[in-house]
Amino acid sequence: MAHAPCFASDNYAGVHPRVMAALAEANHGPAKAYGDDDLTRAARLRFKEVLGESAEAFFVFLGTAANVLALQAMTKPHHAVLCAATAHINVDECGAPERHLGAKLMHVDTPDGKLTPALLEPFLLHLGNEHHNQPRAVSIAQATELGTLYSLAEIRALADFAHANGLLLHMDGARLGNAAAALGCEFRAMTSDAGVDALSFGGTKNGLMFGEAVVFFRPELAADFPFIRKQGMQLCSKMRFIAAQFLALLEGDLWRENARNANLMARLLAEKLADAPGVRIVQTPQTNAVFAALKPQVIESLQKRFAFYTWDYATNVVRFMTSFATTEAEVEAFALAVRQEAGAAE
Amino acid sequence: MAHAPCFASDNYAGVHPRVMAALAEANHGPAKAYGDDDLTRAARLRFKEVLGESAEAFFVFLGTAANVLALQAMTKPHHAVLCAATAHINVDECGAPERHLGAKLMHVDTPDGKLTPALLEPFLLHLGNEHHNQPRAVSIAQATELGTLYSLAEIRALADFAHANGLLLHMDGARLGNAAAALGCEFRAMTSDAGVDALSFGGTKNGLMFGEAVVFFRPELAADFPFIRKQGMQLCSKMRFIAAQFLALLEGDLWRENARNANLMARLLAEKLADAPGVRIVQTPQTNAVFAALKPQVIESLQKRFAFYTWDYATNVVRFMTSFATTEAEVEAFALAVRQEAGAAE
Amino acid sequence: MAHAPCFASDNYAGVHPRVMAALAEANHGPAKAYGDDDLTRAARLRFKEVLGESAEAFFVFLGTAANVLALQAMTKPHHAVLCAATAHINVDECGAPERHLGAKLMHVDTPDGKLTPALLEPFLLHLGNEHHNQPRAVSIAQATELGTLYSLAEIRALADFAHANGLLLHMDGARLGNAAAALGCEFRAMTSDAGVDALSFGGTKNGLMFGEAVVFFRPELAADFPFIRKQGMQLCSKMRFIAAQFLALLEGDLWRENARNANLMARLLAEKLADAPGVRIVQTPQTNAVFAALKPQVIESLQKRFAFYTWDYATNVVRFMTSFATTEAEVEAFALAVRQEAGAAE
Amino acid sequence: MAHAPCFASDNYAGVHPRVMAALAEANHGPAKAYGDDDLTRAARLRFKEVLGESAEAFFVFLGTAANVLALQAMTKPHHAVLCAATAHINVDECGAPERHLGAKLMHVDTPDGKLTPALLEPFLLHLGNEHHNQPRAVSIAQATELGTLYSLAEIRALADFAHANGLLLHMDGARLGNAAAALGCEFRAMTSDAGVDALSFGGTKNGLMFGEAVVFFRPELAADFPFIRKQGMQLCSKMRFIAAQFLALLEGDLWRENARNANLMARLLAEKLADAPGVRIVQTPQTNAVFAALKPQVIESLQKRFAFYTWDYATNVVRFMTSFATTEAEVEAFALAVRQEAGAAE
Repeated sequence: MAHAPCFASDNYAGVHPRVMAALAEANHGPAKAYGDDDLTRAARLRFKEVLGESAEAFFVFLGTAANVLALQAMTKPHHAVLCAATAHINVDECGAPERHLGAKLMHVDTPDGKLTPALLEPFLLHLGNEHHNQPRAVSIAQATELGTLYSLAEIRALADFAHANGLLLHMDGARLGNAAAALGCEFRAMTSDAGVDALSFGGTKNGLMFGEAVVFFRPELAADFPFIRKQGMQLCSKMRFIAAQFLALLEGDLWRENARNANLMARLLAEKLADAPGVRIVQTPQTNAVFAALKPQVIESLQKRFAFYTWDYATNVVRFMTSFATTEAEVEAFALAVRQEAGAAE
Repeated sequence: MAHAPCFASDNYAGVHPRVMAALAEANHGPAKAYGDDDLTRAARLRFKEVLGESAEAFFVFLGTAANVLALQAMTKPHHAVLCAATAHINVDECGAPERHLGAKLMHVDTPDGKLTPALLEPFLLHLGNEHHNQPRAVSIAQATELGTLYSLAEIRALADFAHANGLLLHMDGARLGNAAAALGCEFRAMTSDAGVDALSFGGTKNGLMFGEAVVFFRPELAADFPFIRKQGMQLCSKMRFIAAQFLALLEGDLWRENARNANLMARLLAEKLADAPGVRIVQTPQTNAVFAALKPQVIESLQKRFAFYTWDYATNVVRFMTSFATTEAEVEAFALAVRQEAGAAE
Repeated sequence: MAHAPCFASDNYAGVHPRVMAALAEANHGPAKAYGDDDLTRAARLRFKEVLGESAEAFFVFLGTAANVLALQAMTKPHHAVLCAATAHINVDECGAPERHLGAKLMHVDTPDGKLTPALLEPFLLHLGNEHHNQPRAVSIAQATELGTLYSLAEIRALADFAHANGLLLHMDGARLGNAAAALGCEFRAMTSDAGVDALSFGGTKNGLMFGEAVVFFRPELAADFPFIRKQGMQLCSKMRFIAAQFLALLEGDLWRENARNANLMARLLAEKLADAPGVRIVQTPQTNAVFAALKPQVIESLQKRFAFYTWDYATNVVRFMTSFATTEAEVEAFALAVRQEAGAAE
Repeated sequence: MAHAPCFASDNYAGVHPRVMAALAEANHGPAKAYGDDDLTRAARLRFKEVLGESAEAFFVFLGTAANVLALQAMTKPHHAVLCAATAHINVDECGAPERHLGAKLMHVDTPDGKLTPALLEPFLLHLGNEHHNQPRAVSIAQATELGTLYSLAEIRALADFAHANGLLLHMDGARLGNAAAALGCEFRAMTSDAGVDALSFGGTKNGLMFGEAVVFFRPELAADFPFIRKQGMQLCSKMRFIAAQFLALLEGDLWRENARNANLMARLLAEKLADAPGVRIVQTPQTNAVFAALKPQVIESLQKRFAFYTWDYATNVVRFMTSFATTEAEVEAFALAVRQEAGAAE
């Protein structure tokens, strides 16, 4: 290995070779700009095959924009978006949602990063009262930022609750592939079939260079989106190069292969640390993140050698994240280092 | 040629092979996300070499965002941005500047797409009056949307005028390379040395896959920009892939080679059409756009075979745009077709 | 006269005594806040009597907000509002419309401050094109900022044009009373009956202390307005005090009495200056503004003694504005002074 | 009593007679609009006398705007405002702060509606990190929405903490008079002398018809405020009528007389209910609100006869609010009714 193993984030990884090849392949001659090209048309159709006929996919550059612009299509400024307190849109976007939507995020405390109808119920108290933002969208992440998963039934229950109360359900699928691989299901089962109204379909964290898709399952949400995307500074001129990447990702289940590796490597890492003195695995990883509690001096010492994030400074919990590119050898080397440092500090 | 020659826009072109190679080269192992990687550091330093020590470069995905976020760093919502009526920020961004800045664009009628101190003077009448947006930034495009160029002295005069009145000068450099190639000068002479305060440095239209740079020449403008970029939905996670492209573009003057070809092909096309019956070249091309007046039926018939835009429906003026990838053979084939169609309609 | 006659603006006037009396009358005991009181209910019903059953009136504090929030209810940020270049919303609001709507104002050059279908037509060229703001509302002022008037047929023609193209018609009625008095018609004839979709109904300039009404003639525009008004910082807690003023204004045609006086005094002033050497009345006043061209030194000298605005510095045109409170004696005294100063400068 | 006693809110009260008299008095002849009049000048000077020489006061229409625009002058969109979870700006403004600032409110859970440096400390963890909104302002209410008070030392401690960390301190003084009356201090001691940087000085809830003041104690915050106010749709044309009210309120300590009565009536009500069966006074009132727990059926039955709000549906706590206009007779009548209903339900 030329480089130290890296467990900071799945976006530290590079581009999958088959995606890279697709980019080179797409680079032949001119093509119409702004999505009026054959590759974009093909990729949008591919999304219909994968997610159902109602799926209208729009490509954007990055995940922040996928989430923000999808929610913008669903809300007006006097609305509110209900999300987990730990949601990426709530804590990691420098306020992009509030800035671009004008609306309020109402964040819900959860034990595991997952919303439930019971947790949402109290936030509907002021529906119809002009003094309060009106809840209009529920946003969930699949997988969540804590690496947990919604079951299909849980998604369906949230969709039913939302619709019964005049709300819409948005899914942040930055790690949708990891979730589908973990649940062993198709994308469609977790999204359109489960009642999701709008989806941010992640690409970058599963092996693309850049590019995410916003997918709407209701035509009225899609109607204005070309304008929202353009004004939202996300209309890619050479769009074929996003489309080509998604075609590669969805070809022959490359997405699943990539996600499966990431999930597998996380489980492997957790196993290798399970009985390590001075290491407490906070929960069995469901997708591609391992949360572990370590002594502060162990964290400090390890971070000099390896890239990873402290997740919670109060409890000294760190996050080890794997990707499509993580290898067994890297996991073993890293697990060994963690065991040594943690053991020495006991 | 497998494809019909295309004169619609320089963003119909693909990616230059050396840029493509740089992308492949950058794809080795993990790298820190969000710009904390070696390639991004190197590219930012490269901009200092090219534009002067004061240059602070920040990468974003696309030109819309480069212009809007640069201007956002320069203004508050009660300010105004002065620009030509024909400016891309005024007519082609679906209102992104107004939406994101909150400020007003005050657009100035010009004969040739170029601002002058005399044209700006009347817009300063209400400085200090709370009932009116306060002009704070002047935005010029180099080259302009009409393919015209500011001389170094003209840029300096605008900068002096702006600074004398408490305003700042922004340059939209979507086609900065074409301008520098046409003027035969270095980037620096047209920007920092001429008094420009903030620059959108274009990449996509000169051979990149995606990626533009916002460059500030005043530290106070750069100070908040990391936050503005993140909240503005333009912080690229795998930023090394933008940086690598810019390093390639600035390596061995690839930028000039690309731009020069585009400019040359435009001049060639204009020459080949100069004496064509039924074709009136509106002005000698200074950069990579040819504006020509044709009969409506000729436009209609040509657009069935070739991609190009009608620029002004009232006067039947069309725009033919060349790129780094345009070849002499393509120009000749296209010129022949135009001559034939236009001649037949006489 | 304890004070110098004042022709600067109709908002330099105070409060009409019957409005003042209504305020005192409303001040008995507590009343529910935020519009859930008897006076507000009565005033909203009164608007239905005056403007037709479809009229849904909402009170706000000031005219800026009436226009901005009415337009906000009619548009999304990627839309555009078409208005005259001389429109108050375009030139005198420090960019409040752009800031709060996020949308673009597309301003139309006019000879007399009035829009026509023919003038609007070219702005519809890019309907459906994501690169351009989509025109959605036409905003006209009745009377206009130049003191001119739309006939009922002209309003109807604009409404028909707007509706035929999927747009809505907004009327800025800051001086609606002056217009109705001048046309000798009822409010209803100029608004709902003429196809207006949303109306800013002015109060302050016709004798109120503060308070304007936003009136919608389509239920879908009114539906969200309580939230738009609250979030727009215009929900008055002691709303009965706005309602009481409007009830007084609409009682026994006080509005018409006030507006008629203002119009009459403007005509009188114009007559008294008609043959004055050194004074050129630019046009016969249709409502309560007199536009006159004077020599610069005459303007300067008069402004030391009387309050009025220079309207156009390039042509030395000033605006003399009358109000409900302007008296014949004031007009005579002022006309005399103008004649003397202008005559002396000949 | 012609009307049922009312304990819903202090904005259910009307206008104090001396304020009403001042309005009538101000209504003589014309005056310059938009604050360029003698009364506005006098009132702004009066604020300097009351709050210290550094005080720059600007009048706006209502409390929502006072808070939002003051905070807008203190922040950029990528900043955050720290406030109590129970803060009016967080729960009762339909998201106006987020909408107009673009910034995030970070709300802090508190036992009593009061912030402390210790509670704020954890929110500074991500200062300098572009992925997170940057805390820039701390906003406290004096008195708080729970009727509690900050001591002078507590305000000073918050100001010192804020300044030491590069933040600014804003005070929402919607009930500033009640706080000053309760603490027995001058306004100045609680604000400028205690380190407050910006103040929303409430008028409406202490006897005005409408009107609040934004007061800055730092010139750099005041510099742009005329533009922020205008664009923020809060520039009153006939501003003398706000100024006159404030002059009356600050004349001969009318403000203190009004606030004292409100506070006294609250204490009286609490005393009269202290030993009532079925009534639990949640805490001794410090200002003009009494929080009491009642049985649900008692609340329901009382609300048919009297206006007051349920504060917390989960715990059946109601809020009884007194005002400058509340009389002893009203308190006695109401207390009797509460005792009867609550007693009957035991």
